[in-house]
Amino acid sequence: MPFTVTVRDHMMVAHSFTGEGFGPAQRLHGATFVVDATFGADELDEDGVVVDIGRAATALSEITESITYRNLDDEPAFAGMNTTTERLCQVIADRLADRAAEGALGDSNRVTTITVTLHESHIAWASYTRSL
Amino acid sequence: MPFTVTVRDHMMVAHSFTGEGFGPAQRLHGATFVVDATFGADELDEDGVVVDIGRAATALSEITESITYRNLDDEPAFAGMNTTTERLCQVIADRLADRAAEGALGDSNRVTTITVTLHESHIAWASYTRSL
Amino acid sequence: MPFTVTVRDHMMVAHSFTGEGFGPAQRLHGATFVVDATFGADELDEDGVVVDIGRAATALSEITESITYRNLDDEPAFAGMNTTTERLCQVIADRLADRAAEGALGDSNRVTTITVTLHESHIAWASYTRSL
Amino acid sequence: MPFTVTVRDHMMVAHSFTGEGFGPAQRLHGATFVVDATFGADELDEDGVVVDIGRAATALSEITESITYRNLDDEPAFAGMNTTTERLCQVIADRLADRAAEGALGDSNRVTTITVTLHESHIAWASYTRSL
Amino acid sequence: MPFTVTVRDHMMVAHSFTGEGFGPAQRLHGATFVVDATFGADELDEDGVVVDIGRAATALSEITESITYRNLDDEPAFAGMNTTTERLCQVIADRLADRAAEGALGDSNRVTTITVTLHESHIAWASYTRSL
Amino acid sequence: MPFTVTVRDHMMVAHSFTGEGFGPAQRLHGATFVVDATFGADELDEDGVVVDIGRAATALSEITESITYRNLDDEPAFAGMNTTTERLCQVIADRLADRAAEGALGDSNRVTTITVTLHESHIAWASYTRSL
Repeated sequence: MPFTVTVRDHMMVAHSFTGEGFGPAQRLHGATFVVDATFGADELDEDGVVVDIGRAATALSEITESITYRNLDDEPAFAGMNTTTERLCQVIADRLADRAAEGALGDSNRVTTITVTLHESHIAWASYTRSL
Repeated sequence: MPFTVTVRDHMMVAHSFTGEGFGPAQRLHGATFVVDATFGADELDEDGVVVDIGRAATALSEITESITYRNLDDEPAFAGMNTTTERLCQVIADRLADRAAEGALGDSNRVTTITVTLHESHIAWASYTRSL
Repeated sequence: MPFTVTVRDHMMVAHSFTGEGFGPAQRLHGATFVVDATFGADELDEDGVVVDIGRAATALSEITESITYRNLDDEPAFAGMNTTTERLCQVIADRLADRAAEGALGDSNRVTTITVTLHESHIAWASYTRSL
Repeated sequence: MPFTVTVRDHMMVAHSFTGEGFGPAQRLHGATFVVDATFGADELDEDGVVVDIGRAATALSEITESITYRNLDDEPAFAGMNTTTERLCQVIADRLADRAAEGALGDSNRVTTITVTLHESHIAWASYTRSL
Repeated sequence: MPFTVTVRDHMMVAHSFTGEGFGPAQRLHGATFVVDATFGADELDEDGVVVDIGRAATALSEITESITYRNLDDEPAFAGMNTTTERLCQVIADRLADRAAEGALGDSNRVTTITVTLHESHIAWASYTRSL
Repeated sequence: MPFTVTVRDHMMVAHSFTGEGFGPAQRLHGATFVVDATFGADELDEDGVVVDIGRAATALSEITESITYRNLDDEPAFAGMNTTTERLCQVIADRLADRAAEGALGDSNRVTTITVTLHESHIAWASYTRSL
């Protein structure tokens, strides 16, 4: 995918982790996740874009809106799951892929891959990449 | 205070806010706060520093360690208080001032002001400045 | 103003400058301005904030919306004026002050100063500070 | 290409887009593009570098100099083309590849790929990758 | 490696380069390298992580501790080598791979690739990627 | 000084510190200093600027050029001085003030204050402010 376009958003959640390896992060705590969604394509469309950037930003913000300002420990969608930074990258990328399949990125969009990167602080971040 | 030195740390907390103006932030959610502590002085000491940067970083990390990975709604220190970004700036600055008074920044440190800045996301931050 | 809160937005404009000192910037060119609006206050209100951050962000975005995606050389509001980064800081700060006077930041907000910072690139930015 | 080296520059341009999907960006507006040029290689040369970083920076700045402080709508090189962020990434990567073929990166440079990333704001960027 | 996790650290070193192409960098000078270590994996483990982030940060900091606050020209480990940004990326990635082989990232970690990125300034950085 | 303009540059130096408090920084090591020079003024000139940004950038780069790619321990200008981040802020601000007095910022520039900020890493920086 020689071409990529990325849009940035964020979400602010509470959660806790299960597993001794997490140490103090087993306690209920929280995070701001700055979310970068990267859309990859082999070619640009006739307008010269990978994807309509407005549609891409809207698709991403609809997903972050459904997660932000919540305690993820209480959300059915995340039941039985550690909502680690890595896992949330995957969840958001999969939801973006679903939205793309529904046409949210435009009828003829050429997006072939999605990478989602979540920055949990100035010294740690994670990403997940999948194809469409 | 013509001279300043700043050190950066972070903390990851859950909390909720009381007051209709907060909208969805009334729900239990969370934040990563990237914390900048700025120490101001009129003159440098004989070593050419405002403050020993190692001592400054230790003083700050002791404070962030006491706050991070917690639900602030359950912490007695924050009872009856909205732990807004602004308020947490003040709390950390006051604790740094206490630590300075106890000698944590060195016996002869010349620090006259402390500013604490908390970044809650890539698009919002707050600060509080006080003198020593 | 010991307390401050800052919100970030951006705008993308075309413009040109009059004056030999500007060199190639006398030609029609453009800029992305990343805009930081900082609100200062002496005290926090009963909710523990300088200003409702949602209202602050809305007030700023209404102003950037009225400037972005335009050629400033054609805008009556900027006629006969070099729309330098410094000058645009002042224009936005003054418009924010007008909006505050109209109640856009809330009836009882305690904001006493506004600083607007415009980043024109990764290596240059400007700011303007005024009182309310 | 296990090894990469990146240099950063910027350019400030006016332009407009053709196509209803662009909404207000159909109007003449502008952008600062912070430009990252990444050079990839399988091995380092005898000096321990991918490419002479001074030569790389010069090659990039010659290209940004030829684009900056201009209205791209009036440039013959971009006639009939939407100068989207994605497209400009490709234009700059192709010009860097041409310069490399002419020896601008050194006679024996081992660069096998070029990625150009353009940041149009703090919340949107694009990239294009090609081989040499 | 669809999943990645990255941790950031830094080191501050003196060094000089051999080779006329380096110009003034042939003189003894120095650099702060902000070091990003990225760990890639095909799948998450049962805890939902690529690697225990605490272990990853510790493994990285042990390596940066062994390099920082030194003149690399005097270090036997770097004898006869230009300690360019690219080369130091490789050195750190290889040491991380050794530490992983010794179990420093956990017994069952699924890390398959390591990328190390060193930022030498706000306008230049380099990276090296290897498999485990 | 309601108006400010800032330009950014950098320099890469070796040095060591005298004084037990510096710990491992007593050894010869190095740093990249990202240098921000901020010029303050009460009013804009007839062109709408604090200072010609090209002149400001040139004045700063002439100073960083005279310091970068050197071992500060061997420079007569810094003999008997710990070249801490704070101290180097002052040195650069004073040299900028000298250059301003010589007319380097233009005959009629209105600059009344200079602040120099040096970033030594992603987690530490210092500044010095003086009037002209």
